[in-house]
Amino acid sequence: MTSIFEVSPRCQELQKKLIDFVNNDCLPAEEIYESQVGTGDKRWTSVPPIMEELKAKAKSLGLWNLFLNKSYPEGPGLTNLEYATLCEITGRCPRVAPEALNCSAPDTGNMEVFAKYGTPEQKAKWLVPLMNGKIRSAFAMTEVAVSSSDATNIETSIERVGDHYIINGHKWWISGAGDPRCKVYLVMGKSDPKNEHKYRQQSIVVVPADTPGIEVVRPMQVFGYDDAPEGHCEVKFTNVRVPVANIILGEGRGFEVIQGRLGPGRIHHCMRAIGMAERSLDVMIARVTDPSRRTFGRILARHGTVAADVAKMRIEINASRLMVLSAADKIDKTDAKGALRDIAMAKIMVPQMLQRVIDLAIQAHGAAGVSQDFPLARFYAGARTLRIADGPDEVHTMQLARFELMRGDDIRARDSAIKARRAQILDNGSKL
Amino acid sequence: MTSIFEVSPRCQELQKKLIDFVNNDCLPAEEIYESQVGTGDKRWTSVPPIMEELKAKAKSLGLWNLFLNKSYPEGPGLTNLEYATLCEITGRCPRVAPEALNCSAPDTGNMEVFAKYGTPEQKAKWLVPLMNGKIRSAFAMTEVAVSSSDATNIETSIERVGDHYIINGHKWWISGAGDPRCKVYLVMGKSDPKNEHKYRQQSIVVVPADTPGIEVVRPMQVFGYDDAPEGHCEVKFTNVRVPVANIILGEGRGFEVIQGRLGPGRIHHCMRAIGMAERSLDVMIARVTDPSRRTFGRILARHGTVAADVAKMRIEINASRLMVLSAADKIDKTDAKGALRDIAMAKIMVPQMLQRVIDLAIQAHGAAGVSQDFPLARFYAGARTLRIADGPDEVHTMQLARFELMRGDDIRARDSAIKARRAQILDNGSKL
Amino acid sequence: MTSIFEVSPRCQELQKKLIDFVNNDCLPAEEIYESQVGTGDKRWTSVPPIMEELKAKAKSLGLWNLFLNKSYPEGPGLTNLEYATLCEITGRCPRVAPEALNCSAPDTGNMEVFAKYGTPEQKAKWLVPLMNGKIRSAFAMTEVAVSSSDATNIETSIERVGDHYIINGHKWWISGAGDPRCKVYLVMGKSDPKNEHKYRQQSIVVVPADTPGIEVVRPMQVFGYDDAPEGHCEVKFTNVRVPVANIILGEGRGFEVIQGRLGPGRIHHCMRAIGMAERSLDVMIARVTDPSRRTFGRILARHGTVAADVAKMRIEINASRLMVLSAADKIDKTDAKGALRDIAMAKIMVPQMLQRVIDLAIQAHGAAGVSQDFPLARFYAGARTLRIADGPDEVHTMQLARFELMRGDDIRARDSAIKARRAQILDNGSKL
Amino acid sequence: MTSIFEVSPRCQELQKKLIDFVNNDCLPAEEIYESQVGTGDKRWTSVPPIMEELKAKAKSLGLWNLFLNKSYPEGPGLTNLEYATLCEITGRCPRVAPEALNCSAPDTGNMEVFAKYGTPEQKAKWLVPLMNGKIRSAFAMTEVAVSSSDATNIETSIERVGDHYIINGHKWWISGAGDPRCKVYLVMGKSDPKNEHKYRQQSIVVVPADTPGIEVVRPMQVFGYDDAPEGHCEVKFTNVRVPVANIILGEGRGFEVIQGRLGPGRIHHCMRAIGMAERSLDVMIARVTDPSRRTFGRILARHGTVAADVAKMRIEINASRLMVLSAADKIDKTDAKGALRDIAMAKIMVPQMLQRVIDLAIQAHGAAGVSQDFPLARFYAGARTLRIADGPDEVHTMQLARFELMRGDDIRARDSAIKARRAQILDNGSKL
Repeated sequence: MTSIFEVSPRCQELQKKLIDFVNNDCLPAEEIYESQVGTGDKRWTSVPPIMEELKAKAKSLGLWNLFLNKSYPEGPGLTNLEYATLCEITGRCPRVAPEALNCSAPDTGNMEVFAKYGTPEQKAKWLVPLMNGKIRSAFAMTEVAVSSSDATNIETSIERVGDHYIINGHKWWISGAGDPRCKVYLVMGKSDPKNEHKYRQQSIVVVPADTPGIEVVRPMQVFGYDDAPEGHCEVKFTNVRVPVANIILGEGRGFEVIQGRLGPGRIHHCMRAIGMAERSLDVMIARVTDPSRRTFGRILARHGTVAADVAKMRIEINASRLMVLSAADKIDKTDAKGALRDIAMAKIMVPQMLQRVIDLAIQAHGAAGVSQDFPLARFYAGARTLRIADGPDEVHTMQLARFELMRGDDIRARDSAIKARRAQILDNGSKL
Repeated sequence: MTSIFEVSPRCQELQKKLIDFVNNDCLPAEEIYESQVGTGDKRWTSVPPIMEELKAKAKSLGLWNLFLNKSYPEGPGLTNLEYATLCEITGRCPRVAPEALNCSAPDTGNMEVFAKYGTPEQKAKWLVPLMNGKIRSAFAMTEVAVSSSDATNIETSIERVGDHYIINGHKWWISGAGDPRCKVYLVMGKSDPKNEHKYRQQSIVVVPADTPGIEVVRPMQVFGYDDAPEGHCEVKFTNVRVPVANIILGEGRGFEVIQGRLGPGRIHHCMRAIGMAERSLDVMIARVTDPSRRTFGRILARHGTVAADVAKMRIEINASRLMVLSAADKIDKTDAKGALRDIAMAKIMVPQMLQRVIDLAIQAHGAAGVSQDFPLARFYAGARTLRIADGPDEVHTMQLARFELMRGDDIRARDSAIKARRAQILDNGSKL
Repeated sequence: MTSIFEVSPRCQELQKKLIDFVNNDCLPAEEIYESQVGTGDKRWTSVPPIMEELKAKAKSLGLWNLFLNKSYPEGPGLTNLEYATLCEITGRCPRVAPEALNCSAPDTGNMEVFAKYGTPEQKAKWLVPLMNGKIRSAFAMTEVAVSSSDATNIETSIERVGDHYIINGHKWWISGAGDPRCKVYLVMGKSDPKNEHKYRQQSIVVVPADTPGIEVVRPMQVFGYDDAPEGHCEVKFTNVRVPVANIILGEGRGFEVIQGRLGPGRIHHCMRAIGMAERSLDVMIARVTDPSRRTFGRILARHGTVAADVAKMRIEINASRLMVLSAADKIDKTDAKGALRDIAMAKIMVPQMLQRVIDLAIQAHGAAGVSQDFPLARFYAGARTLRIADGPDEVHTMQLARFELMRGDDIRARDSAIKARRAQILDNGSKL
Repeated sequence: MTSIFEVSPRCQELQKKLIDFVNNDCLPAEEIYESQVGTGDKRWTSVPPIMEELKAKAKSLGLWNLFLNKSYPEGPGLTNLEYATLCEITGRCPRVAPEALNCSAPDTGNMEVFAKYGTPEQKAKWLVPLMNGKIRSAFAMTEVAVSSSDATNIETSIERVGDHYIINGHKWWISGAGDPRCKVYLVMGKSDPKNEHKYRQQSIVVVPADTPGIEVVRPMQVFGYDDAPEGHCEVKFTNVRVPVANIILGEGRGFEVIQGRLGPGRIHHCMRAIGMAERSLDVMIARVTDPSRRTFGRILARHGTVAADVAKMRIEINASRLMVLSAADKIDKTDAKGALRDIAMAKIMVPQMLQRVIDLAIQAHGAAGVSQDFPLARFYAGARTLRIADGPDEVHTMQLARFELMRGDDIRARDSAIKARRAQILDNGSKL
């Protein structure tokens, strides 16, 4: 399917192993996981035992921590392109497979931060148990009171008092904060709110989850889903105190950290979205070719609009996959900054594609499509949110437009040269 | 807003009263209602007390049973057009206002069935308490095993044995069946499955909810919502036995009944959808003009794409409203059958519009837009479902296409006449 | 078709007569007209004789100057709504019918200007022959060098020197200027370019077409069409001199004049667009139901996507018609200014709808659809241009958005009241 | 731009040379070519001399016949992928550059046919002068009376009488037939109309353009363009007689020939479309960043919707390019048949993308956008036609859908395996 992008034999081996693991273990475990999450308050206090089973198996299969790309000595040494192809496979089972491989957000991004910027002490204390899948983590950035899509709006204060930072702020959409295993937060706030350089006001500090002053207020819902046990929580920080050693990279370097953190993460999300789209298409094809479901004398696939929808979905998915892989390849060949435009394009295009693909699949299912009996409605909630998370469409669009519009002068210069040359040809009796 | 469609002074009076009631009572009660629904199993066993408060107030204000149009002596005598304008108002608060007025589905359609086709006994037993708001009801049509969008696929059997019908079938998406107040079902099934006329195989029978053999299996979810206490339930009927007097209209007349039932109901749904769209737009405007929310130095509304979205939403809403009112007006001037095309057009157009409108509003809210803090995500789940309920888009589309395509011969005849006339003009030296 | 909007019996009579005239004379004359336009330079020097035939017949049938609405004593006294319904009928044959009725742009707008603002001398000299269909006219506003969609950019200078104005400027897209019958221009320019009020810098003056200094440079093409004999011309004004009596309404009142001129004109364009859309749909239906055209064993209409397209076109057309008629009705009930939002909505919505409708019709025709054998490609060129003419989509969109966004404060106030009332209910033990 | 697809150093060299040639010669020659085509009947009798200049220069630069891929010993030995990257470059100047390189349709496809299937005599007589750019050719397939998108509908008869074929048929949209240099047709018709195998009824024969009985009736227009001097002509074949040696490949093998002919050709069209899209975007960027064009106080690019359009165009173009290159690569790695799905996807996706991209560019130009002063409207006419030519969207869509839908059984089998495994896990106490 993705043959134009060559991957190493080792990656091909991992692909095969992972496909088997997802089909034989993760997908069969999906409903079991869901039922083990339970109901009521229990959803937030226990963790489905089947997940530990899956994690153990993944580890034994060598399908563990694959996200850490070749720039990290701690990881298995895959390229971003290679790991992207694996994300598509786990994306078919997004509720279970990524975590089973210890490759689920927000832990992956947090581990990258620790691996890239962490002190030896920070690594020992947090990176090691995270990489072992013993604890989980959260990244606290989005705030209730401001439009966080412009990250310079962030208002949480990180005030240095002696050897400590005192943190005060009101965050929400802190994914993972509801999980009893969540032991550590990376908190973004302003340590230097008056710095004239807007992008140097922010710092990121490590905050143990049991630090006094942290209150997990409530889980937010995404459409009707709470995504327990991780959840996306509203969290208040009131006079939360951590040692100054907990700073990441240094004061005022928060933006630097998140820039490095987000690029590859967006690609991972996008490739999982491709997997979700492929599964949605599979679910649809199974339904519309089901010989027992007929309307007006024919199976659904024999209605022309349904077949046309299937073709449309196939085209949209393939084009999206190429865009993501191409961006991943660009990261490999340059770096996240060099691939900024490519990442932005994938980040804009893929979730919108996924929305359309799922919407068509839902329609082919009738009411069943919006229910708990199929993964479609839940996938849709994820797709819709992905257009907002990690920067809304609009921010990426404007960034991309800026790049393109900078070409204006060059284009006009070339147009002038063409005009001059035309005059020359005409002067020459219309001879070259 | 809807001035081109004249409504009576009495209806104008009702509009004003209703707007006040929705603003002063229903919208303020929305969150209270939600919290009274509770959590866990309690959601299905109790009914929020605030609803009885609202019902009492609506009754005292004369805002009661407004849906029963002028063809019913029992009702307040509004035209379909007039009632449609009121549906838009209740649609702004869809979780609370329609029920407060005793105007919520599926009760309204069921009351119409009883009022139009019921025997005096059926009316006394079921219509009276329904109209008093003392009990609720359900309509059991959609089935698990077949594509119910082609209603001839329905497989539930209604077998006459002596003076009784024995009902066996497996239904789902039975709205209202989870409600403790639901006391009666109208069940559609096949009483004559071998009748060569495919539309005379079906009958509808009245089934008291406490009849032995009825099992409410589970509530279905719509996106993550369960819509308790009503719910949309999976229900099994196993050897359920009711007297033959419980037949509606007569054996084999099931299709006749549902045809009459669905037309105006679709209009009501569509107009409430207009109200939901207007509220979504209001919510969006409040957000993007909020002076405290700025990105990149401006309030959101000063970003060109946001303003363009607002304009687009306004156009789509207004066009949709005109289509629904026009269909309602057509019902009034002919009847539901005469307005078949107009109803189909509204039914196709409006929910798709609502999806787009809500999607834009969500995007302007960032993550808050998909959460429980705004009505948008929940509205979206409703909008998406409306494209499936009461006949999916595809069925209405094909019906509408059939009508249009029948014009082929007439158009070709006119084209021939034009050609003949052209030849005549040319023969006449290009003089008319 | 448009029954919800009541029109007078007299208008119904005119509708019938006009339908007959279009079917029996205009549509049969279409090809004849086209062939009489001729080829090469002849296209700009002669006028198809069949047009004078048609004009004579229309006049004799009382189908003449119908555009002048009831506010003009010179006209037949129709409302804007009534005339709009007639525009749909002529819109089916846009190349021939509107001119045959002396109801074609830009003459209609110019006649309105003369009728509304003209001095008795101006009326005698220009309005009378225009209303008799003896001469034609042009409106010179758009300029080569500036973005004319912001009309304050207009640079043409109208300088008063003694008893004359001296006009210098470079215009293009001056519709009608190529026609040998075009005897008069209304020219917009700046008489007071330094006026601090940006909308009082402009004036409009009457310029006889034979005034020295006017050079018709070339006809512009719209896609590949030149729309001869009228054309849309590039025109240079070099020291063109007219008496001061030729001012319309007074110096600095140019904006006032065009505001009054454009509102109803946009509605006329939109309703003709509805007629073009209906004809496109007819053409498509005739094609896809043609029993002699089959692909893969079926006539085209039996392919599901084709039928779905037909339904989609019907819905889009009907919704658009309602929007235009509603705007026309609003003009009648208030005035062009009062209907500003409604006109903007129709102006944005209708040409986009027409583009989509024609595009689908083209696709159903295969290559024939883009050719001279069907009206579709030519209609498309018109539809595309209509999104730019009389203000591009963007200008109307921003204007409309501004209106909506002004509601922000009111919405927030209502939200506050709802919150306060909720608190009150809660205080009252959750009782109303 | 297309770095993920590696091309050989030789191809990179050709890319550079070609970019220079297009910028320095082709684009400056565009207007000159257009004016040399002339007006009136002259358009069909002469050939712009500048074209011969360009051809000579291209030949001298080694930019000649590049389309003949590595499977042809006569060609320069590029892969399909490599040639595709060159097509994008010529696509920026589609009116002039492809022909200058002797790489324009329909000659390229016809040369491939001769090269692949021609007899030595056919090659000597037709392939050699075609490859030298001395003559041109046409492919006669589409017919007036039938829906040619289902090629089995073709009715032209090719009847063998002794040593000759007698051809009778009525074709249209025969591109190139208007050109005075067009010396040969490949004509598709039915030699065995009663063959029970529907795809063996057709043959293709070589018909010299001066054979008696051929009548070029008229050029068809594409949106007002006639595309002189090549044109797309209506052509009648009346008792046209050619020797049996003129058959291609053998009787009844017409489908085989066109299948081989069309695959790569579609890729070439698509890549030129990418070039047209890139030029459209360039044109737009130049316009909207032009400091002299301002509306409402800002250059156009500072209006948010314009910038968003630019970003959208960039994404759509890049995704489309990847799809085409990926299909070209697939042809290289398998063959045209192996890449059937990929070609279909590109063929559906790219012209629709191009339509949208051009439409946005037009809007940013105002009326200028639809005129002869910019390439946009003409490009649009080409884009629209491309959705019909070489098989309309619908045919490719249904073919693609068929492939996908064949996966139904496999998907259901996998789902069953997942269910069985889940049961096993549950039986095992929820352990893997």
